[in-house]
Order: sequence, then C-alpha cells, then structure tokens
Amino acid sequence: MNNILIIGAGRSSTALINYVLEKAKFYNWFVTVADANHEVALKKINGHPNGRGTWLDATKVNDRRELIQRADVVVSLLPPHLHFEVAQDCIKLKRHLITASYISKQLYALGDEARSKALIFMGEMGLDPGIDHMSGKQKIDEIIAKGGRLKSFRSYTGGLVAPESDDNPWHYKFTWNPRNVVLAGQGTAQYLEEGKLKYIPYNRLFTQYRTVNVPNMGEWEAYPNRDSLLYRELYDLGPIPNLLRGTLRHKGFCDAWNAIIQIGLTDGSFPILDSEEITYHELMESFVSNKATGSSVKEKIANMLGEPSADSPVMQKLEWLGLFRKKKLRIKSATPALILEQLLLEKWKLKDTEQDMVIMQHEFEYELNRQMRRLTSTLVLKGTDGNNTAMSRLVGLPIGIFVKLVMLGKINSIGVNIPVLKEVYEPVLEELKEYGVIFQEKDEVLKDKV
Amino acid sequence: MNNILIIGAGRSSTALINYVLEKAKFYNWFVTVADANHEVALKKINGHPNGRGTWLDATKVNDRRELIQRADVVVSLLPPHLHFEVAQDCIKLKRHLITASYISKQLYALGDEARSKALIFMGEMGLDPGIDHMSGKQKIDEIIAKGGRLKSFRSYTGGLVAPESDDNPWHYKFTWNPRNVVLAGQGTAQYLEEGKLKYIPYNRLFTQYRTVNVPNMGEWEAYPNRDSLLYRELYDLGPIPNLLRGTLRHKGFCDAWNAIIQIGLTDGSFPILDSEEITYHELMESFVSNKATGSSVKEKIANMLGEPSADSPVMQKLEWLGLFRKKKLRIKSATPALILEQLLLEKWKLKDTEQDMVIMQHEFEYELNRQMRRLTSTLVLKGTDGNNTAMSRLVGLPIGIFVKLVMLGKINSIGVNIPVLKEVYEPVLEELKEYGVIFQEKDEVLKDKV
Repeated sequence: MNNILIIGAGRSSTALINYVLEKAKFYNWFVTVADANHEVALKKINGHPNGRGTWLDATKVNDRRELIQRADVVVSLLPPHLHFEVAQDCIKLKRHLITASYISKQLYALGDEARSKALIFMGEMGLDPGIDHMSGKQKIDEIIAKGGRLKSFRSYTGGLVAPESDDNPWHYKFTWNPRNVVLAGQGTAQYLEEGKLKYIPYNRLFTQYRTVNVPNMGEWEAYPNRDSLLYRELYDLGPIPNLLRGTLRHKGFCDAWNAIIQIGLTDGSFPILDSEEITYHELMESFVSNKATGSSVKEKIANMLGEPSADSPVMQKLEWLGLFRKKKLRIKSATPALILEQLLLEKWKLKDTEQDMVIMQHEFEYELNRQMRRLTSTLVLKGTDGNNTAMSRLVGLPIGIFVKLVMLGKINSIGVNIPVLKEVYEPVLEELKEYGVIFQEKDEVLKDKV
Repeated sequence: MNNILIIGAGRSSTALINYVLEKAKFYNWFVTVADANHEVALKKINGHPNGRGTWLDATKVNDRRELIQRADVVVSLLPPHLHFEVAQDCIKLKRHLITASYISKQLYALGDEARSKALIFMGEMGLDPGIDHMSGKQKIDEIIAKGGRLKSFRSYTGGLVAPESDDNPWHYKFTWNPRNVVLAGQGTAQYLEEGKLKYIPYNRLFTQYRTVNVPNMGEWEAYPNRDSLLYRELYDLGPIPNLLRGTLRHKGFCDAWNAIIQIGLTDGSFPILDSEEITYHELMESFVSNKATGSSVKEKIANMLGEPSADSPVMQKLEWLGLFRKKKLRIKSATPALILEQLLLEKWKLKDTEQDMVIMQHEFEYELNRQMRRLTSTLVLKGTDGNNTAMSRLVGLPIGIFVKLVMLGKINSIGVNIPVLKEVYEPVLEELKEYGVIFQEKDEVLKDKV
C-alpha cells in the first residue's frame, strides 16, 4: 500500500495533509489531494514531491471512482451528505475509508459488506467526534480494568477563542462550521441524571446550562449536546446513572444565545420577505411581540425577552452584533438563520493573527475499594494563529495518525467503526502527545467508606 | 358526463357522498366510492341505486387508473401526499379533479398541462381552506366593486366544541385531524400589521394570541396561522397594510397549550426511550428543568413554566389531561407528539351524542366615501351529533356543490385553481345557504371624514 487519497481540501485539512506529507517522505507514500477548487488543492500540497493536487467534482461518479481506484486508503473530508457515495465506491473498489463526520445509519448499514471484504471504514475520527471518543473510552476502560464501577460520565468540549484574542462581549469566535453553531441544539437534547432520563426541548436548552470548572481556566457554561444516551451503547457503559455530553461556552454566552432563539433568529426554514431591502432594525421590529411594551424596538425586545433593562448584559451582546442598526441586510431570499450566520461570520471572525482554543474535559465518578472517586481529565490546546488553529490540528492529526496506522497494516478492526477500540485509541492518543495533545488528570476522593 | 368517482370514504366524506347521491337520482349520475376499507365504502353508499362502493388501494397504479378511466369527475379525499399521483392520472386520462387539501407546489406545476387539456383541477375546496377563500374573496370583491379601499383583512376559523357539549377545562374536543392539532404552528408564523411584516416563532406563538369578539358568542383567542402573506397574491389584495389568518380557540386554551410546548411535548422527531414501560408522571419528570424548584414533579413543572402555583388554571388543565398520573403510557417507541396525540384522542373525544361547532369570522376594514368602515362577517354552525359534525358538513358540501357545477358544465375555469373565482364562489355560497351556511354581517363606521 502506498497511495493515499484525501477528498476535500477545506479548512480542516491543513494539519492532516501536512502530517501525511511529512510521513510520506519516510514511508515512500504518494498523497493525492482532490478538491473542487484546484488551486486550493495545489496550495495545500505546496510542491511536495510526494504529493499531487487535483481537481475533482465529487458528485461526478466516474472522476471520483477513477481517483479512488488508484488509492489504497481514502479520506473523505466532504460535507457529510456526500460520504455515502464515496463509501459505496470504496466497497465496490475495495478501498479503506476514513472520515471525521458522525456515522449515519445509512453508512452503518454498509458494515457487513465492509467486513466481508476486510475493509476498514472508520468514522468520527476527528475532534468531537473523535478525540472525545478516544480519550473518554481510554479512561473508562482503565477504570473498569482496575475494578472501578462507573457512576457518572460527563464529557464537555468547546471550540473557543483563546483569552489572548478574546475581545468581544460574547467571548466567542468561529473556529468551525458557522452554520452548525447557528443551528445547534434544534430538536430535543437527551441525557441521564441520577438514573433518570432527562429531555430538554430547544426552547429551554440554552437556559438549562450547567457550570463546569476547568482547572486553571475558571468556570464555563455547558449545554447538553444532542442525544447523550447513544453513548451508553457506543462506549459499552451498562446501566450508568449519569451520562452527559455537553458543549462549552464562555460565561454569559448561553443566556444571550437563548435571547437569539426566543426572538426567532435561528429558524432556517423560511425566507424573510424582501430580505434584500430591509434593515437589521426592521428585521428585529418584525419579531417584536404584539404584547411587548417600550418606546423603541430595542426596549420592546428587552421587554419581550424579560430582560431587566435595554442595557442588560444580554441586550449589550445583541446591540454589539449590530442587530438594531438601520443598515440594510443586503441578502436575497435569506432565512433568519442565514441572515444571522452572515452577520456572525463578520462579527465572530477569528483574524489571521488571533488564536483559538479547544477545551475538552471528561468528568468520571466511580466507586473503587469502597471509595467514591472523581477523575477529571482536561485538555486545553491553543492555536498558533488564525490559519493554524487548535481546532484544525485536533481534527486533522488523529485522522493522519490513523491513516498511517492503516497504511502500516497495524489496524485489524474491519467493518464500520468509531475509535473506541483499544488498538485504535492507544497508539493515536500516544502519538498525539508529541503534538501537545496532553490531558491533565486529577483523581480525588469524593467520599470514603461507601 | 354522468360518472363521479370519490376516492377515500373517511371522516370528511359523509356530507359529500350524501349530497352527491341525492343529486344523482335527479340528474341520473352514477357515483363510485372507493376506499381501502370496502365495508366503509359500502356503508357510505348505503344501498343507493345510483351508487357503488368498491375496494381500492390507492397506491396500486393500475386499479386506480381503471377507476379514474371510468369517471368524468374525480374527487380525492386521500391524504395530501397521495393527491399528486391521482392528479397525474387525471392529466393522462383527461379527467377533472377536486380536492379539499392545500395545493402543493408540485400540483401547481401541473397547471399548464391541465389547462392545455381543458381540465378543471380545483383544490382547497373544503372548509379551511375552502369556505374561507370563497366567503372572504366574495366580500373583498364586493368592497372593491363599490369603490372601497381595503386597509385590513383578518380571517379567523376554529373547529370547536359547541357550548352544549363543552364539559372539559380545555373547552376543546377533536373534530378534525388530531395530529395536525398537536403539531400546529411549528415553524414561524407570518402576517402583516400596520404595513409591517410580523414574524412569530413557534416558541412564542401561543403567547401572542389576540382576542376576537364573535357576535353573540363572546370572546375567543386567535393565534396566527402559518403564512398569512401568501394571501396577498392569492386574493389579489395589493399593498394591504393588515393581513392575518388565525385559528380560534376558547379563552384559556393558548396559555395552556403554550405550557405543553414549553415542556417539550409536541416534538415528533425522536422516540422516548422505553416509552412502553414509563408512566406519564415519569415522562413529565424527564422534562423537568434542572433549575426548577418544588417538592413534587407537578410543583417543579409549575415553577419551570413560571406559573403562580401548582393549582393555576394552566396547571389544572395539565392535571386534567392526566399528565401527572402514575399510569403507564404503554406505547412502543413513541415520540412526545405521538404520546400526546394518543392521550388527547381519549380526553378530547367528541362523543356520538355531542355537538361540534365551527366559527369563521372575517374582519375587513376599508375606506369608502371618506369613511373608515369595518365589516364583520361571521359564520357559526353547530353539528347535529358526533357523526354528523358541522366540520364534515362544511368540508363536504362545498365539494359536492362544486362537483354538481362541473357535471352540469357550469364551470369554465380550467387549470389548477382555488375557489377565489367569482364563477365558483357565487353559486357555491348561494347553495350553501340552503344548508344553513349563512354569514351574519355587521357593517359599521369606525371613523368619519378620513
């Protein structure tokens, strides 16, 4: 095996491509990077002798198959809805496949076929999902191996702005897919608390955040992320009474984001009429309740939201976004969610000179030798600058390392998997340490003689 | 032309079938009623010499086409998603088609083809949509014909329980598709107020109801229904400053339904885990906020909702539904919305001996001869009993009357239409009067010398 194909050379690919090219020299691999934008693909290869950048419209079956045919391992960094077609090609052409996206039901259904052809289909191999699976499952396996009984597993991740570059009242900048941030949480979140199922509908999600203390980094807010119950089975946790996956945000973020939701700005299902012609101020006026009181649109919005004044911390954040400006939107047939996304793209942009920061923290409570103990495992990683973010490093490196392991024949787990397998997480986490991906641990006694 | 085919013999078909059979004798028509349940079809025909009940699985193309081939006019009372295939058959076999459902974009796209074959495709020919279009557009055309300038059009409809049969604290019983009632309002409602666009997201919809005074029937609550803006074009209203379509409910309903939404019970997108085994009480406990205080689940829910006490009018309505009972749900893999629907089906059932009531009220404000005037046009119709509801009469009769007009060659409007055309609404509304469908009008001066 000596051919690697990476489809998609977008934001998350830099660290992966650099890693694989670096190893390519040593192992004598050849790396093809294919993207709809040929120049971007070329730029990522940057003249490396073991690399080639090529143009690919991933929806063109024949072009796609021709490239896949010539590879041994395929990495798909395409938008999630395009993975399935690539996966079908990989089945047909007998190629291994790696992605960083959540595995869809459709993709899981290819498991038997992949296994019968001895193919490795690894999904959720980036950051979240990815490093969270690996670092969480490693600790779980360790606790169980030494005879511990797990009572609680709460895992939090946030793609954030580093304090050094934090200069806005939201204390947030985009380091990942802005659309996902705007639409986050729609539906009903699910988790386990004291052995009971808990559900939070979207309209209450950002009011029911909890406070998470991160060693040396102070307190953060965390809101429950999607369906935490899934992880009982994925991590083989048995009847654990507390299970929660959450997203970390700076203090004050959740209340203000809840205001955005309550106003109605996260709906992506209908276009605002004449959105090209109206101003932000008019947009906000359109959402004012007929029961709100106040002498200005801003006062009415504050009253509608139940804010103590039009100058409250939440209202200041809305004001800072420019939502009350008499400036035209200038976007045609835009949904509220798209208008918001475009506005935030400008306001929450991480500049080239700025640093992002990823925090991941797992909290385990377990019984061992008649003691209740708590293990806190924390990763804090900052980016170098706006183009070399912690986020892209943490998404790209685990994929790169895993590609290497597959190329070297060190992976036996065929079929469709996520990286909760020891033969995957052990070597990947070990090598990640060389890149500064180091979890700090604190193991303490909560209660004696239980 | 002497053959009529009615596909679907469900709840809404009785009044239609009875009307058409009655006319069939006089005009020498033959009426075929086709349903997936043969017995139901036979029962609706009830041995009438001009009728035939037959079995049809509407998804079976050949069976369906054979029946359509033999008809001159086809009425589809199938679920909306099945209309399109019937419509395609009607194009192919050159048959007229009538439905009571909202016309989909897909169906509108058949307009040119229907017109080129001189076919009448009439949709939205029931109550709401249907009678609302006809009675509203009739008044609009009258006002404009006499030189009036329309400033405001608000139209409200409610399928309700008659006061004689109103014996529950919600003052509501089902007379129509329960699923639609449970899911009503999801998305963002849109209307026009004082020349401004207004949007209300689902999470605020049932708090922003307005009060509508219905002559002789007291005050009712109305919440905005979907996208009222559409009606500017459909009714050719020009730049009207106020435009609203609303749904009527009894006083007190909206606050309590808002509580149901805030708890999270209208989400139809995910199954409750182990829904077969848990109780209503446990279900409610699952939705309690981690920030709610109180010594019981009921008290915590009241606190979470911001209710003044666990015995408030809203809480009494939740209690009456049995949401705090320690009784098992006994429904497998059910979403919150399905659990709620099943519960409401039992609690909000209109019994055989009970009467429903439909209220429709149009409110027009217009300028005429330097006066601002208000015209209120109100229909209140009660059902005979639980099987002969006002609702089914008001859905079925306009279709029946329109079928007659088509059969007698009195309709010239070919292509895909809704009944806002004078040649349709005039004769249909006129004949509906014979069946007690009479709008009471009040025309008053709001302001002189404007």
